[in-house]
Amino acid sequence: MSAKWWLRPMASPSEARTQAARQRQGQLTKPPGSLGELETIAVRLCGLQDRDRPGIDRLLIVVFAADHGVAEEGVSAFPQSVTVEMVRNFSRGGAAISVLARALNATLEVVNVGTADDLGPLPGVINRRIAPGTANIRHAPAMTPPQLENALQIGIEAAERASVNRMDLFIGGEMGIANTTSAGAVACALLGMAGAALAGPGTGLDDAGVRHKARVIDEAIARHGCARADVLGVLRCLGGFEIAALTGAYLHCAQMGIPVLVDGYISTVAALCAQRLNADVSAWFFYGHHSAEPGHRFVMEALGARPLLHLGMCLGEGSGASVAVPLLRMACLLHNQMATFAEAGVSRALE
Amino acid sequence: MSAKWWLRPMASPSEARTQAARQRQGQLTKPPGSLGELETIAVRLCGLQDRDRPGIDRLLIVVFAADHGVAEEGVSAFPQSVTVEMVRNFSRGGAAISVLARALNATLEVVNVGTADDLGPLPGVINRRIAPGTANIRHAPAMTPPQLENALQIGIEAAERASVNRMDLFIGGEMGIANTTSAGAVACALLGMAGAALAGPGTGLDDAGVRHKARVIDEAIARHGCARADVLGVLRCLGGFEIAALTGAYLHCAQMGIPVLVDGYISTVAALCAQRLNADVSAWFFYGHHSAEPGHRFVMEALGARPLLHLGMCLGEGSGASVAVPLLRMACLLHNQMATFAEAGVSRALE
Repeated sequence: MSAKWWLRPMASPSEARTQAARQRQGQLTKPPGSLGELETIAVRLCGLQDRDRPGIDRLLIVVFAADHGVAEEGVSAFPQSVTVEMVRNFSRGGAAISVLARALNATLEVVNVGTADDLGPLPGVINRRIAPGTANIRHAPAMTPPQLENALQIGIEAAERASVNRMDLFIGGEMGIANTTSAGAVACALLGMAGAALAGPGTGLDDAGVRHKARVIDEAIARHGCARADVLGVLRCLGGFEIAALTGAYLHCAQMGIPVLVDGYISTVAALCAQRLNADVSAWFFYGHHSAEPGHRFVMEALGARPLLHLGMCLGEGSGASVAVPLLRMACLLHNQMATFAEAGVSRALE
Repeated sequence: MSAKWWLRPMASPSEARTQAARQRQGQLTKPPGSLGELETIAVRLCGLQDRDRPGIDRLLIVVFAADHGVAEEGVSAFPQSVTVEMVRNFSRGGAAISVLARALNATLEVVNVGTADDLGPLPGVINRRIAPGTANIRHAPAMTPPQLENALQIGIEAAERASVNRMDLFIGGEMGIANTTSAGAVACALLGMAGAALAGPGTGLDDAGVRHKARVIDEAIARHGCARADVLGVLRCLGGFEIAALTGAYLHCAQMGIPVLVDGYISTVAALCAQRLNADVSAWFFYGHHSAEPGHRFVMEALGARPLLHLGMCLGEGSGASVAVPLLRMACLLHNQMATFAEAGVSRALE
């Protein structure tokens, strides 16, 4: 990994294609603006994909799985064993993201970046296990500097595979018991907020559990004295392997010119890390959905994100972003296939 | 048409299937509730379709097209000729709904219920032209009683085709220059609101145009002295052929046990008419999207509707509902294909 690779320039969306796409939208047989966000999506994709007829035929979904030492603080409604159990479920095709990837005809990769237990070889799972989970952030930095570098590099490699395989869109997902605590700590540190503002139920904590989680977040931040401007320091002390991998993947996707559809809470925190490392990255982001996890709102506000869906989902795995893919696809089809006023012989608006 | 056919009982969703579906959702490998609205959709569809494994394989989209005498009041940004021009565009496959129907592998029917000009035979268009548009509601009732009966019957027949062809879901769409004025008048009459509260830009009126439209709505309501409780009277004096056809289709779909995905402003006003004629109909409704047309909100509130999408669309044609179809399909696939905790050997939440 070259020094400060994240500062290397992001790809530039084509201004000419964006202009041409905006013009075409004004000529299609519909009142101007009546396709709402679908018009914005199509116009942006033309610029990002550098095409006049955009599309999401080739879709890569990469789910990064890892464990979190902070799980031992009792911050999750589920036992830590669920992380590896769910990796097996991904491998066998029984998880939500497995079903969605099949429905979308997407390539689904699962990358083990650091589960507590060694899983051995599993079909469909790429083994890049850095360690048996991060350290407990309440007492120690989550990662060593080489571990952080390793996790970022694993994300970069996922983006490279997306580029080599000419993917039209990248979705990153995550699985890791206790990772809303880790993501919450990262977000609180970067946004200068208290744990109570961002901590939420995750997979199903009760009110007392949420209060405990907020305290753990505050203690972890106090323990490491993270400075807001030191994004990599925050990620290393408070983050998770999967969050760092997502951060690396997002940055490198933007460098390689691949649009990214960001998922929910954890993924958006990784997107925030990426944006704080290189602000140009966010030109490549679409946001799939507004998670039910209450902290998501603040992270999206910090990014100026406008998510496509508001369905009260909070599953992770890249599921919310995946559910939004058909919207992007239909936006492309409408842009590409609708007749213009001239082609259809339809009258335009009265002056 | 038999007398008071709309009071004949609506089909009853299966309570047993609904219960079983709710139970299954609790066993799938995800935190309880984490699929949000997608869980609600799947559970409702199980009850409505009377199946344990719901699906939207067979989808019928029917677009009803008609003209409105009130167009002569200058209440639309587009000339009246656009109604027939767009019917030709539907026929040739160049309109938004044509593109979406192809993408969804849906059957698309266009029914001419009363365009101003005679279109002659057109591929894909069913000719049921009642009259060359309705009368101008500012000066006369939109329809005669036989015309209203005719329009409702045309909707009933569309629902019958959906039933005969064993459709899993029905979407109604509409096309008709000035029909936001007609729909606005119907909604104002049924909800006891002033034109100014519901009138919006439609296909692109400026502020002065919207104020004029509100006045036209108020004058039409005053002219006919419609009583809120006389739903058919409101529909006859202020409505449009396509709005009445949608009302008939929705009611008969519910009687035949076919779930309906309601589109935007005009369609939701028809749904309100249907609901006021027989409250049981709304058990069969899903709502596709929140239209950018400002009056939509009030009509949805009156129906207790929770639309799936908020994309700022306002095109009509059934387009907003069609864009929501993949959400229903993915809700079904997740319900049908995800592994249970037991099947996947995944641990459940801690007590």
